[in-house]
Amino acid sequence: MANLADLARLINAELRGEPDADVIRARPFEHASEGDVTLALNSAFVARLNESRATAIIVAAPIPTDQNLLVSADPKLAFARAIQALHHADYQTIGVSNDLVAGAGTVLGTELSIHPRVTLGRDVTVGDRVTLYSGVVIGDRCSIGDDTVVHANVSVYHECEIGKRVIIHAGTVIGSDGFGFVRDEEGRQVKVLHLGGVRIEDDCELGANCAVDRGGFGDTVLRRGVKLDNLVQVGHNCDMGEDTVVAALSGFSGGTRVGRRCVVAGQVGTNQHTTIGDGATLAGRTAVTKSVKPGAVVAGLPAQDYNSWRRSQVLYSKLPKMADRLRRLEKIVENLTRAHQNSAE
Amino acid sequence: MANLADLARLINAELRGEPDADVIRARPFEHASEGDVTLALNSAFVARLNESRATAIIVAAPIPTDQNLLVSADPKLAFARAIQALHHADYQTIGVSNDLVAGAGTVLGTELSIHPRVTLGRDVTVGDRVTLYSGVVIGDRCSIGDDTVVHANVSVYHECEIGKRVIIHAGTVIGSDGFGFVRDEEGRQVKVLHLGGVRIEDDCELGANCAVDRGGFGDTVLRRGVKLDNLVQVGHNCDMGEDTVVAALSGFSGGTRVGRRCVVAGQVGTNQHTTIGDGATLAGRTAVTKSVKPGAVVAGLPAQDYNSWRRSQVLYSKLPKMADRLRRLEKIVENLTRAHQNSAE
Amino acid sequence: MANLADLARLINAELRGEPDADVIRARPFEHASEGDVTLALNSAFVARLNESRATAIIVAAPIPTDQNLLVSADPKLAFARAIQALHHADYQTIGVSNDLVAGAGTVLGTELSIHPRVTLGRDVTVGDRVTLYSGVVIGDRCSIGDDTVVHANVSVYHECEIGKRVIIHAGTVIGSDGFGFVRDEEGRQVKVLHLGGVRIEDDCELGANCAVDRGGFGDTVLRRGVKLDNLVQVGHNCDMGEDTVVAALSGFSGGTRVGRRCVVAGQVGTNQHTTIGDGATLAGRTAVTKSVKPGAVVAGLPAQDYNSWRRSQVLYSKLPKMADRLRRLEKIVENLTRAHQNSAE
Repeated sequence: MANLADLARLINAELRGEPDADVIRARPFEHASEGDVTLALNSAFVARLNESRATAIIVAAPIPTDQNLLVSADPKLAFARAIQALHHADYQTIGVSNDLVAGAGTVLGTELSIHPRVTLGRDVTVGDRVTLYSGVVIGDRCSIGDDTVVHANVSVYHECEIGKRVIIHAGTVIGSDGFGFVRDEEGRQVKVLHLGGVRIEDDCELGANCAVDRGGFGDTVLRRGVKLDNLVQVGHNCDMGEDTVVAALSGFSGGTRVGRRCVVAGQVGTNQHTTIGDGATLAGRTAVTKSVKPGAVVAGLPAQDYNSWRRSQVLYSKLPKMADRLRRLEKIVENLTRAHQNSAE
Repeated sequence: MANLADLARLINAELRGEPDADVIRARPFEHASEGDVTLALNSAFVARLNESRATAIIVAAPIPTDQNLLVSADPKLAFARAIQALHHADYQTIGVSNDLVAGAGTVLGTELSIHPRVTLGRDVTVGDRVTLYSGVVIGDRCSIGDDTVVHANVSVYHECEIGKRVIIHAGTVIGSDGFGFVRDEEGRQVKVLHLGGVRIEDDCELGANCAVDRGGFGDTVLRRGVKLDNLVQVGHNCDMGEDTVVAALSGFSGGTRVGRRCVVAGQVGTNQHTTIGDGATLAGRTAVTKSVKPGAVVAGLPAQDYNSWRRSQVLYSKLPKMADRLRRLEKIVENLTRAHQNSAE
Repeated sequence: MANLADLARLINAELRGEPDADVIRARPFEHASEGDVTLALNSAFVARLNESRATAIIVAAPIPTDQNLLVSADPKLAFARAIQALHHADYQTIGVSNDLVAGAGTVLGTELSIHPRVTLGRDVTVGDRVTLYSGVVIGDRCSIGDDTVVHANVSVYHECEIGKRVIIHAGTVIGSDGFGFVRDEEGRQVKVLHLGGVRIEDDCELGANCAVDRGGFGDTVLRRGVKLDNLVQVGHNCDMGEDTVVAALSGFSGGTRVGRRCVVAGQVGTNQHTTIGDGATLAGRTAVTKSVKPGAVVAGLPAQDYNSWRRSQVLYSKLPKMADRLRRLEKIVENLTRAHQNSAE
């Protein structure tokens, strides 16, 4: 619970209304009622502002109304913060399950929440207030930073470093061997041993059933604040820049370098050793075959400027018409040519 | 084992042959021999009907032959039912492994098959005749309906509801947080807490290593009879209609609404908050960027009418020829223009 | 540690330099120093050969230099072997964890490394020197060959056969039911029971979080030496040929036959029952809709000859220009036609 004056401060919004009104929940516009703070994101909701029974409504700009408004230049951000402020449960330790299997040399922090059936290898370091759900398996010589949460059935291979406040969703695999093979004289594939590890920095979040391979030499790196959706593939020695977000089913081939604050939509793929500049945006299913410039917005296979791609895309759907026009033109020109030849004779 | 009269009744086919002949197995055409029922699906197999040593052959229409025929308007369906009739093993309880970890308030049904190393949270409800394989982790306050089977190493987060006769294949994750982040003033990603759950209705089947995220507000829903192949991503607050089937590696962004009885092929993707109408068919790798009408058959990126897409696709492969024709035409027209100017002078 | 004479022999290279110099590590060119063997793969590194402090450098052809050279026709292969020779740790048994759960009739080989929390079904056969990591679940009547490594939280269903020296990375699922459903008279999906299994032959490697479905009748087969990257889907009754490699996020529909020594890049998909000939190469995101000839190099949706596809692809990005040229030509031809009609009057 918070009163609106406090909430406004927490979410960095300007209050127009009663500072002492209390809110207890955040709720979507259609369902919000008394005690709720809600969001009127688009004009359709703003038009229905007076219908709402919410105690407070987050909007982008002040509007004449009797409702309590929380005005924010970034209403989505303000609402995300309101949800956090009202619904975030403070961390509570559940302790360490007495069936924990931990190898020699493993060091545990304090105030842990280690659920039943967790398995830690040798010489693992676990920070304070770490939550490990059932079925988690952590390999030898890994470290896990303070306040990190590892969900059920996550597998981490040996020598991986996981930072503070990281969230790893269920089923994700960290540190599997990179996909490196070289064909021998007889056509058989020779495995390239992978001697590096994985480093996941603070504040990263990885979705469910992702796969992050270890490096060949040196580490695969997810820098501070990287967010991966579900089923994302990160190949060996990739380097993902700070605060970059990646949607589901995207895959990065070995050695891809992704800049800071990039936005990578779903089902994107990259060729090996490509570089994506800081702040680039990759539309859904982009295929990166060579480097992408910082700040570029790209799409297509191979990746090209988004607007050019859109133009080609629209014309693609008009190809049958273009083909008709071309055929018609050929006919006319053939007739013209014949007519010209006749008149020249 | 069944005699042909009984089998014909079970699979809804018309028997032409000996009602008392016994079949014990279903087998593919090339391998079927005495005691087997098989399927002659296409004309190539029908032409070889008399070669078969099978005891009975399912066909679409009666044919003059000495073989025992089971005539069905839908031979594939009849064969699926025959396999079911002859090979389905009745459920047998194996009981509850004595190493079950179950939190306070958890209630178990009867005739269960709970394998070793299953972990249930607090206040979980498990129906009757439920099978939970090893490594299954179920979070707090989940419910699992009668006759449901959850395979090895499946992870279900808290507050997810799973119906009756559901099958969840190994490694699948239910209830992970949706991919919701909002960038703050400093470019960092602020997590949007996910307060909803997941509801999987009766008779659904989910393939291996899928990921179904929980809702932001309200639930992500798979309605009765939805079937997902392996490695499918279902984003937060998606709503998948009854009897819809989805092939492998497809992904649905947050808030996608899919109608009833849709057929979604492999590697399909959808944009957020798109709607796919009842009975729509999405060809492999379709990218849904705006709503798809009920009954539509679509393909391409962005999704368009399948037949239009096919025409464009064919012309796409002829682009080099089109470019040549255009160049040739430009040359001719240039000459014509010059000739016309000369004759006009 | 090895001296250069021994190493040259092991990696099948010709030594130009001191046979008695010792190397202890393999390292990439930029980081190699004394005691290291490294690789100068491309001309940029070859140009900097004399800067290197490495004890030996693998090159494709001899070059005048004071450095110790290891000359190999296939330097990448030679380097992979050098890494193997210097960094491969000999297998050491850790024994069988005393918490192993194994069903009746299960037979274990010798010199095993079975980590805590492994669960084996009934009548499983485990060969010698097999490593099973924590969370592995193996179903009834499976067999696992000598020297195979199964990583954490892998799930194998009943009646799957895994060969010798196989590596299965974490989270992968083997033997889940194929995606087979037939719609009944009321529009509901009837499950086709899957009676086959999975056979993974010797020397295969499967990446993390893959899914390999069991066959309907007969087995899904990965033949000797198949290598799958992460998040790969192999449908029921697929048959993958020897030494074929498949990159991440590719999916093979039921009944796909892939030849020997094929190279399948990432995010590729195939239609059901297609055949890909021996030695074919499929570029990233190829969609195989009908058979691909042996040795073919293909790309696109649907798959076509790579070079044709490239030409179309280039023209695709020029479609806006083509459309402009077509429009301009129509204008000119219209004027010409009018001029011609005028002059004819």
